[in-house]
Amino acid sequence: MTTEHQRITGRTRLFAVIGDPVEQVQAPTMMNPLFARLGIDAVLVPVHATPAGLASVVRGLQSSGNVDGLLVTVPHKRAALDLADEVSAAAALSDGTNAMRRTPDGRWLADNFDGEGFVRGLRSAGHEPEGRHVWLLGAGGAGSAIAVSLLSAGAEVTVTDRDEHRVHTLVERLSPHFPGRLHSAAGPVAADLAVNATPLGMRPEDPLPFEPALLPDSTVVVDIVMKPRRTALLRTAETRGLRVHYGAAMLAQQLDLYVDFFSLGRRLA
Amino acid sequence: MTTEHQRITGRTRLFAVIGDPVEQVQAPTMMNPLFARLGIDAVLVPVHATPAGLASVVRGLQSSGNVDGLLVTVPHKRAALDLADEVSAAAALSDGTNAMRRTPDGRWLADNFDGEGFVRGLRSAGHEPEGRHVWLLGAGGAGSAIAVSLLSAGAEVTVTDRDEHRVHTLVERLSPHFPGRLHSAAGPVAADLAVNATPLGMRPEDPLPFEPALLPDSTVVVDIVMKPRRTALLRTAETRGLRVHYGAAMLAQQLDLYVDFFSLGRRLA
Repeated sequence: MTTEHQRITGRTRLFAVIGDPVEQVQAPTMMNPLFARLGIDAVLVPVHATPAGLASVVRGLQSSGNVDGLLVTVPHKRAALDLADEVSAAAALSDGTNAMRRTPDGRWLADNFDGEGFVRGLRSAGHEPEGRHVWLLGAGGAGSAIAVSLLSAGAEVTVTDRDEHRVHTLVERLSPHFPGRLHSAAGPVAADLAVNATPLGMRPEDPLPFEPALLPDSTVVVDIVMKPRRTALLRTAETRGLRVHYGAAMLAQQLDLYVDFFSLGRRLA
Repeated sequence: MTTEHQRITGRTRLFAVIGDPVEQVQAPTMMNPLFARLGIDAVLVPVHATPAGLASVVRGLQSSGNVDGLLVTVPHKRAALDLADEVSAAAALSDGTNAMRRTPDGRWLADNFDGEGFVRGLRSAGHEPEGRHVWLLGAGGAGSAIAVSLLSAGAEVTVTDRDEHRVHTLVERLSPHFPGRLHSAAGPVAADLAVNATPLGMRPEDPLPFEPALLPDSTVVVDIVMKPRRTALLRTAETRGLRVHYGAAMLAQQLDLYVDFFSLGRRLA
């Protein structure tokens, strides 16, 4: 019988989630109960790093003999790539990492599960992206990863970002891998799914990332913002009669991916 | 009503204990229940750092915005001094630090509570060191700190270490502050207290640090080794009819000192 959190001793292995700010991260409240459930003597703690301090913080954790893995969140996903010894295809294509682990030979491998978690979350709710058209707002770290996984899953994707250079770079990078299926647009387009992959909606004073009234009735409106769970965007979309999909699904699905990535299943006696 | 360990969230503040090895450290099982009892949203985790990795690990933790304090154990107490912005008198005299904290202006202050914890532990058991003669085996990090505090408390101290240079350096450094009260000897001397401040006794295969049969009947035999609680030295001394004092008292007393040093009392609402 395990309690929600296990007793921390000198033998406990460490994981950290690194962000700026870090107060809002959900990983500790999801991973620590998971460790307890799996009977793994490990703890995940939040670690605050500014952009200027990121390299020092990450190098320090990587130098620690009992740190086995790092989760990386906003705004460090791009910069953390440079602090890895190896980079997975998903992380390279996304140009960012949200998870790093120590390999058996002591190197640090960067991967990215934002996109795969997002696609699995969609599927778990019955929204198969294959052959569908997705309008994606946000070509930042999360948006890029989501674009990669949606394209890998067989969707057609149109990306919008107020930073045109960012969209252009993303399309340039991904188009050779997914010819003819990635487009850019200056604003909302009619699509099967409309996805907010910007942070807009985390703060009460944020404007809507886009106006659901502009979308066809059949559109599923998706938000990757997890806190609040029911964002102003999703509330407005529901009021408008559109189906919605919550950001929480993406993180929930990532937990399974982390279990594999960090070999948590194999740690069991 | 708090449980033994509080729920870790993104808001939880961090403390770390740094050692090589780190598996044996007692600080997590003592500090985390203390945080819970005080209602403080903080967690202390073990962090393994090799001597080669120490600077990177410590600098990384110091760069993290939510790390408020570090405990330092063997073999890093001396080297960690160089990673502080300010050094207390106790740490400077001991030539080592076992606790560092971030000051309100963002600097890192190194202090040392090994000696003070040791002396408080003695007093809590009725062994007032003032005016007594103490034979101290071990002039390393813990031994140095204990010598400083015993001398500050008014004891006369004779130090033995197989590393003669280490003893000489200690006597040179401290004698100006405590004239005529610090001596060195090649082996056991008749004293009121005989203290093992070496790591001998942590491993089952270790020889006795010294032979209690050589000591007068009135000697109190003290061990700073905490694990096992009842070391071979203390067992042998008891068999010989001598009074003994356990290493655990030193750490228990340090908890109160940490509460002050890390301002844990003042964090309460």
